[in-house]
Amino acid sequence: MGLIMNDCLFCKIINGEIPSIKVYENHGSIAFMDIKPVNPGHVLIVSKKHFENMLEADDETLADVAVAAKKVALAVKNALKADGINLAANNGRVAGQVIFHLHWHIIPRFENDGLRLWPGKEISTEELKEIAKKIEKEL
Amino acid sequence: MGLIMNDCLFCKIINGEIPSIKVYENHGSIAFMDIKPVNPGHVLIVSKKHFENMLEADDETLADVAVAAKKVALAVKNALKADGINLAANNGRVAGQVIFHLHWHIIPRFENDGLRLWPGKEISTEELKEIAKKIEKEL
Repeated sequence: MGLIMNDCLFCKIINGEIPSIKVYENHGSIAFMDIKPVNPGHVLIVSKKHFENMLEADDETLADVAVAAKKVALAVKNALKADGINLAANNGRVAGQVIFHLHWHIIPRFENDGLRLWPGKEISTEELKEIAKKIEKEL
Repeated sequence: MGLIMNDCLFCKIINGEIPSIKVYENHGSIAFMDIKPVNPGHVLIVSKKHFENMLEADDETLADVAVAAKKVALAVKNALKADGINLAANNGRVAGQVIFHLHWHIIPRFENDGLRLWPGKEISTEELKEIAKKIEKEL
């Protein structure tokens, strides 16, 4: 895993080889407009180092991205006069990841914008405890 | 904003006043099973300090939560043999937040689990640039 990947769209945006509409940059992250926004004001927070996604990232990068995400999220909320903000990170193709370079979505939300979260399901305490045991074994 | 809020469900879980099925704990965060999982293995990463959500949090807490989120996400992925992971943080009622104490959702994803991301919309470059200017003014 290098710092820059030659065939990565987001690495090219970070290097300035491909244009983007950038709104913010700090030590480890940049933020630019998503060109297919879920809502107006949808911004991507992208690590400058190339990692496939957050599951591969080092702690310093994760901390940088999280702090940048908050800063940009507040600016998006104020600029768009949004009522709320969803932060989303899709890790893996099955989770909806399309560009395989770590990025977090900042999505402003508005009353009656029609977007709905995924519904939770009923589950027994026994089943939850069994799943928890499996997760603890991996930690 | 204090360290603990008396009337907060998650503060009570952190204090042990209300039971939870905990899978992980570090300096600044705990992780326990969501009792209405979107998919089996759905875990919440919760800051020990009380903040309404990530928009209010200090940088140290954000870094802690992000690092814990990665660690737990990998464990969830391995334990459930998941194909991907969605990380989601809902900030504000309109964004789907129900408990007003900072928490991030770790949702394992599986081929053909039927969940779909929100669709992106077409938007002109001019409009994107105008929105970006508004955001930059707030940064």
